[in-house]
Amino acid sequence: MKKPVLTVVKVGGAVLEKEDSRKELLQKFAALYGPKVLVHGGGREASRLSEELGHPAQLIEGRRITDDFQLKVAVMVYAGAVNKQVVAELQSLKCQAIGLSGADGNLIQAVKRPVGDIDYGWVGDIIGVNATLLQVLLQGGYSPVLCALTHNGEGNLLNTNADTIASEVAGSLQKHFSVRLLYCFEHAGVLAKLSEPDSLFPELWEAELDQLLQQKIVHAGMKPKLYTGFKACQQGVEEVWIGNQQMLQNGPIKGTRLRTKSIPE
Amino acid sequence: MKKPVLTVVKVGGAVLEKEDSRKELLQKFAALYGPKVLVHGGGREASRLSEELGHPAQLIEGRRITDDFQLKVAVMVYAGAVNKQVVAELQSLKCQAIGLSGADGNLIQAVKRPVGDIDYGWVGDIIGVNATLLQVLLQGGYSPVLCALTHNGEGNLLNTNADTIASEVAGSLQKHFSVRLLYCFEHAGVLAKLSEPDSLFPELWEAELDQLLQQKIVHAGMKPKLYTGFKACQQGVEEVWIGNQQMLQNGPIKGTRLRTKSIPE
Repeated sequence: MKKPVLTVVKVGGAVLEKEDSRKELLQKFAALYGPKVLVHGGGREASRLSEELGHPAQLIEGRRITDDFQLKVAVMVYAGAVNKQVVAELQSLKCQAIGLSGADGNLIQAVKRPVGDIDYGWVGDIIGVNATLLQVLLQGGYSPVLCALTHNGEGNLLNTNADTIASEVAGSLQKHFSVRLLYCFEHAGVLAKLSEPDSLFPELWEAELDQLLQQKIVHAGMKPKLYTGFKACQQGVEEVWIGNQQMLQNGPIKGTRLRTKSIPE
Repeated sequence: MKKPVLTVVKVGGAVLEKEDSRKELLQKFAALYGPKVLVHGGGREASRLSEELGHPAQLIEGRRITDDFQLKVAVMVYAGAVNKQVVAELQSLKCQAIGLSGADGNLIQAVKRPVGDIDYGWVGDIIGVNATLLQVLLQGGYSPVLCALTHNGEGNLLNTNADTIASEVAGSLQKHFSVRLLYCFEHAGVLAKLSEPDSLFPELWEAELDQLLQQKIVHAGMKPKLYTGFKACQQGVEEVWIGNQQMLQNGPIKGTRLRTKSIPE
């Protein structure tokens, strides 16, 4: 039996921050056919709130140090401000959105990252996804809207990269759906030069990634999307794309398609 | 056919704020048999955050004026900080909690309160509850944890009293369940004198309420619980109780039971 198509969209904070681009994104998401999931970040807004509260976030190599205070800010911004605003706006577009963190319904279980050279604090590495809950909601016509928080089952919330969450959620649902995973950000896809739209890679093979990164043809900032995207491919996710919100349409997609030769059972 | 028992617990911010009483409350909630719903406030914590951000909340006769800023703070605190902390702790107690606002899954629809003598801002009066979603979750073994936010279907979140939410949610589920609604706060129930536990009213009839309020035998601060509690009785909620967290047990309940003679069809 052919599996139904499910779309998982990961959207970055920059797209959601500005009212215009947020509204456009949400309209496009609401108009997508079939079951769908939205995963969002919110790091910049969290950084702003931390600053307003007099405790600016500390970043080491672009990664947030999530101490008790920063965790609370992240929870307020990701699961509160951003998630509920997105849900309310999707509802106004007649999209049956339901906002969840990884703690809700034990949706995403994680372990606190072990302390190495750097103590990242309350950061979680995913160990499991409650795909049953997602299926129940999708079958009921609901569109889960997931923020970048997980939990450890011991009463602690954990900060987890939204790209990783999108990849793991997509992977957990590929048994029951033919999953399209779309990483949606401000650029048209993976570009050799950001200023040149013609330099778009229409596809990128996992086997060529290391070389392209070494030669700095692919920007290092793309790494999280690329690594988590290829992982989703390996887990059996049918299509993985990186691009801007023009990808969110029911016809053919334009962006960078990630491809891998590893085919799971 | 006899309807299954459903417990709806409304818990005030004062109980949740202190770690000791929160942990006790959540342990008792997790240990309750059968389907259950938790509804929580968080006004005091929202007031603290507003102050830290340099815009203290304005209250008129104990009611919060919810301007754009205060709404955002309420969303961050209620749907973010408080809701997710409660959910994560319940998960650690093996309770399948799932945290939701009224926007999620169109769970609680409201209209913005018309401006009268006072403009309360983004405050919502409930017009509908999506009982189907609650039933789907309850049947799946999930315990909804609801914060005091609703939405107007036009993209706006609204601040709604948690007592009212508990009452309306309980009322919406009475067709399918024999509902026990427990208003849980720091006192043993409705007391003639706060300092005298022996002055507990074991029951309170709706018909005697006005007189007791006029004679100031019942404290005016109890009004929201009493009015919304009696409304739940009228809507067919089987049992409505006001008391402290000792009410959360599987045996007989001690507190103040609200009673009304109006029996719905």
